[in-house]
Amino acid sequence: MTLELDVLTVGRVGVDLYAEELHASFTEARRFQKSVGGSPTNVAVAAARLGLRAAVFTKVGNDGLGAYVRHALAEEFGVDTRFVGTHRTLQTPIVVAAMDPPEDPQFVFYREPRAPDSTIVPDEIDLDVVRTVPILWISAGALAVEPSRGTARILLAERGRRPHTILDLDYRPSFWTSADEARREIGATIDAVTVAVGNRAECEIAVGASEPDAAANVLVGRGVELAIVKMGGDGVLVATREERRVIPPVPVDVVSGLGAGDAFGGALCHGLLAGKSPFEAVEFANAAGALVASRLLCADAMPTEAEVWRLMETSSARS
Amino acid sequence: MTLELDVLTVGRVGVDLYAEELHASFTEARRFQKSVGGSPTNVAVAAARLGLRAAVFTKVGNDGLGAYVRHALAEEFGVDTRFVGTHRTLQTPIVVAAMDPPEDPQFVFYREPRAPDSTIVPDEIDLDVVRTVPILWISAGALAVEPSRGTARILLAERGRRPHTILDLDYRPSFWTSADEARREIGATIDAVTVAVGNRAECEIAVGASEPDAAANVLVGRGVELAIVKMGGDGVLVATREERRVIPPVPVDVVSGLGAGDAFGGALCHGLLAGKSPFEAVEFANAAGALVASRLLCADAMPTEAEVWRLMETSSARS
Repeated sequence: MTLELDVLTVGRVGVDLYAEELHASFTEARRFQKSVGGSPTNVAVAAARLGLRAAVFTKVGNDGLGAYVRHALAEEFGVDTRFVGTHRTLQTPIVVAAMDPPEDPQFVFYREPRAPDSTIVPDEIDLDVVRTVPILWISAGALAVEPSRGTARILLAERGRRPHTILDLDYRPSFWTSADEARREIGATIDAVTVAVGNRAECEIAVGASEPDAAANVLVGRGVELAIVKMGGDGVLVATREERRVIPPVPVDVVSGLGAGDAFGGALCHGLLAGKSPFEAVEFANAAGALVASRLLCADAMPTEAEVWRLMETSSARS
Repeated sequence: MTLELDVLTVGRVGVDLYAEELHASFTEARRFQKSVGGSPTNVAVAAARLGLRAAVFTKVGNDGLGAYVRHALAEEFGVDTRFVGTHRTLQTPIVVAAMDPPEDPQFVFYREPRAPDSTIVPDEIDLDVVRTVPILWISAGALAVEPSRGTARILLAERGRRPHTILDLDYRPSFWTSADEARREIGATIDAVTVAVGNRAECEIAVGASEPDAAANVLVGRGVELAIVKMGGDGVLVATREERRVIPPVPVDVVSGLGAGDAFGGALCHGLLAGKSPFEAVEFANAAGALVASRLLCADAMPTEAEVWRLMETSSARS
C-alpha cells in the first residue's frame, strides 16, 4: 500500500553547482553552491513545496552525489523517491554554472558517457500510477535518447491522453543528436498529451512555429486542451479551444532565470489540481516563476503557496 | 625566443571542487571551493611558488573551466602555459570532493569519455626543451592510456635518462584498465628515469614490492639514482646507490592530505636544483608537504620557500 500521488514527473536529474558570485566568469568565481537539479525533478520539488504529493521517475548514479539527491528529495523537499532508480556504473550528472551574467549563466554539463536518467525503462515504474495519477508531467528531454525515449512513449500510450498529461517542450540542443531529430520526436509526442508548455524557441522545435498564436493554433489543432507559450517579458499566451489570453509578467528584480520555469511548472500543476481556470493557473504559475527568478538557487528556492499569493497581491496592488 | 625552464611536468590537469565543510558527506556539504587540480599540474604550481620556472605539458577542454585553469596557471601561479593545449571537444575534467573525513576525502571524478590531458602528442611539445630542461617530471598517470602513454615514452626516449628525470609513481586504479596493465607500463618506465617517488602501494604496482627497503633495492638495482618511498607517519625512505636514510615526518595538524604529495614534488625539484643532497632535499620536501596537509586547498595552498624554512625551524626547535 503506497500513498497516492498528485503529480508524477519524468526525466532528468542531476546536481547543480552554481557560483555564488554574480557576474563572475568561471575564472573569477571561487565558490559554488550545491543544489538538486534537472528540470522535471525540480518541477516535482516545486509541486511538493506547494503541498502536492509529487514523485519523479528518474535515475541517479551509484555515488555520493546520487545519495545526496535521493536524500534531499525525500528529506528536504518531501518528494516521493519510490521511482528514483540507481544506475550501477553511470555517474550522477553535474552542471557547473558561472552566473556571468546571472540572467544568462554559462554552463558546463558533465553527463558523459550518458546520464543515468536516460536509462529508465518501463519495468522501473508502476504503470497503474502512470495511468491514474492526476498529473503526468513529461520533460521533452526524456525523448532525446533511448531507452528513455521508448519508455516515455510507453508511459504515454498507457496513459491514453488522460487529462492532465503535460509535455514540457524543454529543449537543450546538446542532449540531442540533431535539431531535426528533436523536431520529429517532440513533434510526434504532441498527439499524446493534453497540455503543452514551452517558450517560443521550444515551440519552433515542437511544432515548427515560434510565433505564439501560430504555435498555439497548431497545438490546439492537434487536440491539446491547453497550450502555454512563454514569451519572456511579453508574458505568457494561454490558449484553449475556446479562448486565448496573454497573462502579463510579474515584475521582479531578476537574479537568475534558473529554475523559474520549473517553479512555473510545479505551480501550474497546483493550479490545475485546485480547479482553477487555465488562466488563473497560469497567473499563479507566473508569480511562482517570478519568485524563483528573484532567487539564486533552483530547488532550494521553490516558493510556498503563501509566498506566491503574497507576491501576487503586492504586484496587483502595484499595477 | 622563450624563457628557459627549470622544471617541465607532464600529465593531468583538471578543476577541483572541494567541500568547504569538513567532516560533511556529499549529502551535507553545501559549498565547494574551486581550485586547479591534477597532480603534475600542482607539482608545477608548487615549483613555481618556490621560485622555479615551471611549465606543464597537458591539455584542457575548450570550455570556461579550461579557460580558468589556463588563466590561473599563468596569472595566479606563474606557471608557464606554453605547453598547455586545448582539446576541441573533450571537457576539462573535474573532481568533486567531500571532506568526509578530511584526511581521506570522498571523490567523484568527471573525466568521461576521456580527459583532454590523455590526448597529448609529441607534436605539441618542444623536444629540445624535453631533452635539456633540468628536471623532467612525469606522472605515471600519463601512462594509463594512449596517446599520452606513447607520448611519455617518446619524451623519455628523447631525454635519454638525463638527470633529473623523475617518475612520480602516482597510481589511481580508476584511470587504468587493470592493475596488471599499470604494473607492466609503470614498471617498464623505471629504466628510463633517474628518480622515482611513490608511496608503498605505488611501489607495489611499480616494482612488485611494498616493503620500502625491498622497493628501493629494485629501483636502485634498475639504475635509478634516487629512490624515494613515502611511508606516511613513518617518514620517507631516501635511497641512493651509496646510502639510505629515513627522513622523519614533520608534525602538523592535518586538515587534508590533498596536494601534500604535489607540494612535496615541487619542493623536491627545488631542493635538487639548489644542489642540496637528496636527504636535505627530501627534508625540505617533507616540510612543504606537511604545510599543505595543514591547509584545505591544493594549488592555492602551495607554500613559499620562506614558509617551508619557517616550519622546518619550528619543528626542529620542537624536537
